[in-house]
Amino acid sequence: MFSRWTLLTTLRRYDRDQAGRDLLAACLVCLLLVPQALAYAQLAGLPAVAGLYASILPLVVYALIGASPGVALSFGPVAVLSLMTAAALAPVAAAGTAAYLAAATTLTLLVGVFLLLMGLLRMGFVANFLSHPVISGFVSGSALLIAVSQFKHLLGISADGLTLLQVLPALYMQLPALHLPTLLLGLGSLALLVLLRNLVLFGVPEALALRIRQLSALLLMLLAMALGAALQLEVYGVRVVGTVAAGLPPLGLPNLELGLLRELLPAAVLIALVGFVESVSIAQSQAMRKRQSINPDQELLGQGAANIAAACSGGMPVAASFSRSALALQSNVATPLVGVFAAVLMLAAVLGLAPLLQHLPQAVLAASIIVAVVGLIDVSGLRRTWRYSPQEGIAQLATLVGVLLYGVEAGILLGVSLSLLLFLWPTSRPHMAVVGQLPGSEHFRNVERYQVVESPSVLSLRVDESLYFPNARFLEERIGALIAKRSSVRHLVLMCSGVNQIDASALDTLEAISERLHSAGVQLHLAEVKGPVMDRLQRSEFLQRFGGQVFVSQYQALRTLDAESTARAMRAQ
Amino acid sequence: MFSRWTLLTTLRRYDRDQAGRDLLAACLVCLLLVPQALAYAQLAGLPAVAGLYASILPLVVYALIGASPGVALSFGPVAVLSLMTAAALAPVAAAGTAAYLAAATTLTLLVGVFLLLMGLLRMGFVANFLSHPVISGFVSGSALLIAVSQFKHLLGISADGLTLLQVLPALYMQLPALHLPTLLLGLGSLALLVLLRNLVLFGVPEALALRIRQLSALLLMLLAMALGAALQLEVYGVRVVGTVAAGLPPLGLPNLELGLLRELLPAAVLIALVGFVESVSIAQSQAMRKRQSINPDQELLGQGAANIAAACSGGMPVAASFSRSALALQSNVATPLVGVFAAVLMLAAVLGLAPLLQHLPQAVLAASIIVAVVGLIDVSGLRRTWRYSPQEGIAQLATLVGVLLYGVEAGILLGVSLSLLLFLWPTSRPHMAVVGQLPGSEHFRNVERYQVVESPSVLSLRVDESLYFPNARFLEERIGALIAKRSSVRHLVLMCSGVNQIDASALDTLEAISERLHSAGVQLHLAEVKGPVMDRLQRSEFLQRFGGQVFVSQYQALRTLDAESTARAMRAQ
Repeated sequence: MFSRWTLLTTLRRYDRDQAGRDLLAACLVCLLLVPQALAYAQLAGLPAVAGLYASILPLVVYALIGASPGVALSFGPVAVLSLMTAAALAPVAAAGTAAYLAAATTLTLLVGVFLLLMGLLRMGFVANFLSHPVISGFVSGSALLIAVSQFKHLLGISADGLTLLQVLPALYMQLPALHLPTLLLGLGSLALLVLLRNLVLFGVPEALALRIRQLSALLLMLLAMALGAALQLEVYGVRVVGTVAAGLPPLGLPNLELGLLRELLPAAVLIALVGFVESVSIAQSQAMRKRQSINPDQELLGQGAANIAAACSGGMPVAASFSRSALALQSNVATPLVGVFAAVLMLAAVLGLAPLLQHLPQAVLAASIIVAVVGLIDVSGLRRTWRYSPQEGIAQLATLVGVLLYGVEAGILLGVSLSLLLFLWPTSRPHMAVVGQLPGSEHFRNVERYQVVESPSVLSLRVDESLYFPNARFLEERIGALIAKRSSVRHLVLMCSGVNQIDASALDTLEAISERLHSAGVQLHLAEVKGPVMDRLQRSEFLQRFGGQVFVSQYQALRTLDAESTARAMRAQ
Repeated sequence: MFSRWTLLTTLRRYDRDQAGRDLLAACLVCLLLVPQALAYAQLAGLPAVAGLYASILPLVVYALIGASPGVALSFGPVAVLSLMTAAALAPVAAAGTAAYLAAATTLTLLVGVFLLLMGLLRMGFVANFLSHPVISGFVSGSALLIAVSQFKHLLGISADGLTLLQVLPALYMQLPALHLPTLLLGLGSLALLVLLRNLVLFGVPEALALRIRQLSALLLMLLAMALGAALQLEVYGVRVVGTVAAGLPPLGLPNLELGLLRELLPAAVLIALVGFVESVSIAQSQAMRKRQSINPDQELLGQGAANIAAACSGGMPVAASFSRSALALQSNVATPLVGVFAAVLMLAAVLGLAPLLQHLPQAVLAASIIVAVVGLIDVSGLRRTWRYSPQEGIAQLATLVGVLLYGVEAGILLGVSLSLLLFLWPTSRPHMAVVGQLPGSEHFRNVERYQVVESPSVLSLRVDESLYFPNARFLEERIGALIAKRSSVRHLVLMCSGVNQIDASALDTLEAISERLHSAGVQLHLAEVKGPVMDRLQRSEFLQRFGGQVFVSQYQALRTLDAESTARAMRAQ
């Protein structure tokens, strides 16, 4: 609906200048996309060409349906989703079999349908439950796991596994079988990549060095393909990508067996959420630069459709890539139509590259994957979180370690649960402050932090948390202790500026507190109760029963109650 | 440690008057405890005498170690824990076997050790995570489930099961086999109980009617034992309690096989928590009447020791009983030593009653269980929760239905998770209000609820929730929308009186918001930031980077910023 309007708006204003900028950006993106597509397909356990296929139709569909006008995401295969795909498919079928390919297609379809449904139900907010520390821990953990999972290709051995606990022992067992030519090729590729990415250190001008850095993976692969074709490396036992069926991606519907769908569904949901969070973060940071905003629900529709397109063209799950989107932005991209140009270029690449691919050594792909993902390990983010909030640092570290030891899904679930529990934990023992009046103002502040005036007969207590079942008894104990120490107090005013909810348990507790205070000769009052909380209190019998007043401000409360006390004291004299 | 002091204090002041009151209360409690102990043992799938055994040693131990001075809890078997015991033991062994008895002892030991550990670690607060609606739903559901589980005894058939889904079909299948004499006996017992409990309706004076009501279960059982012995009911096919080994409870250590321990641990944890919550609630309500307070950690130690004692005397898990504790309080009990008196009386009961028990029909026990638990079904509590807070009503109902359909443990876990999620849900879409100054005061209120004054150049936004990952993006969107509509705004002041935490994700978002506002020519400021939140912000670089000020109050912010704007406007003229 609204998506078509966006496209129309873009097309109506589209001119030659914009087209030129989009085409240039598309060329640059494709130079990065080709090697990434090949490598990530290998990471997902799929034939290299599947990565190329996944970089055609989905790009067109996303450009036409999803893209917000000011945003130029580069869709296609991404490292983390490829790792998650391999983890999801491993229990279902053996990599390399036809069943594995069929299951990959089914998984991609599920991802697409789930994203589409979320978009139609306007559920984009669900992604908010992945906190920044969890995402950072997850990305770092995945990057490490991906890097380690590629060691087998560098060593020329077989060591499968989805977690460090599986991969490391397998690597150790197979180490004696390592293939020296493959290892030399792999280490050489790594060294070449590191060199090409750091030419600026050797005095190459910055702009040129940056360009070479962006093309480094492609340069390496072209070199490797040429070397492979010239030397026939497979004859020496070096594993290569092997024969690739040239031609267009096969169009067709995936396997929809119910048992398979059920088995893949949980993984599909997580892949969809992770892909969405990654893409939306990129989109949002791009939109912010241009002072525009994005529509997360429309993004969901576009990403869902793109994944369905990927499923129908024999591909793998797709999302926006950090590195390629950044490159497109640097290249002064104009509109989302860059995706259409890139798709056409990728189509040409499939037709042209397929014959060359068969001699490309897997060790070279592994080297380019390792170099790409190592940059994602976010050590400074970890340190920053630790300093600001150690418990969130724990959630971040738990996610990272969880991903490494138990896999991507377990790591994310652990991180999200831990984040929620760590948020809940302090709410169960809330901060409370006895407050007094700031002299000369109507404001009340913590008696322990400010020089304030307290009334002898009125105790003002500020509760810095919603009142709900885990902290209700805590409030009761705290008030009991405070009152026990202050014999002259006749009124207790709860300052509710920080109370955003009062649940049924806390309401019961407030009634109990009020009764207990009555029998100690103290009247409970409330002040600064927020509108939504007050609306709900009025639906209970508490306000009639507790005998106190609800003051609009703490200042009002003190003025009224202090005056009463003084009047009573004067009458008593 | 502190527990011994409590006992010493009690003993030092103990006089003849107190002893007399305690003895009388103990007699009355035992008249209720004997039939309950027999019935709850049947409910737990244990021999009737196990209930009596569990009412001796644990009472002494709790009186000496746990009891807070002003509190007189009646320890011993309780209905809900007996149901949970049956559910925990069913997968481990068949009821009636020696393995079942051994497992029951092991379970009780685990419960005791867990409570003791919680007490030593001062973890009494954990019980707070069971919200009132969850407890109410759990008690009502258990009561219903207990009542239905006793129908088989009324009908004289076999229909085992731990949930309604298991019990109801079993009852239906076995219905044709019903034993008419048993049914008549059961219905007759029910009718007699209902009659004895409602004599006040037939003109009996209130005090006498109350006394008879309290003794009704005992009267019924004595009558049934006499009838059983006279008529030899078992000859007619009526199932009876059967031969009971008279004598003292067997002292000895339980089976400590590792596999069994691991299998029973989750159930033991829940039994311990539920027993603790029940006991602490009773203790707290009693202490409140006497204007005293209890020490939850000491209660944990006492209850742990009591359960270990129960395990060592061949018994079943014990806790405080609502009905018996209320009776003790009505009987003007003086000190916790009532438990010691009651234990001595129960010892006599074991020795004297054992021979009579063998002719007691199970249907009579079933009738007394049903009448006892039906009173626990809390319909008015359900209605009250629904009115105050429908979503907590859902948690309550889910717990109730969960207990009925999936068992006690699943019900509680469902209820607790749902309660936490329902608390989190509104925090993910927090209430925010644009606020203005109440004329003639320093206070700021929602512009939609109050007649307030707004500044054209300063936008004041109050956020009624802690800022954390699920709501961070929501804040960003909301601020974007607000600023877009107000072109004259130069300053945005976030009023943080309701912000009790700011997590790392929200901090990132605040930085992003601040940058975005800068580029729109608006400066972000904070006001009324609480001490603990400020302490943490100072550990980040946000305060240096965001370029705004942190005001002690919203009033201060407005005065400063409005003055600046006016000065700038005057300079411009």
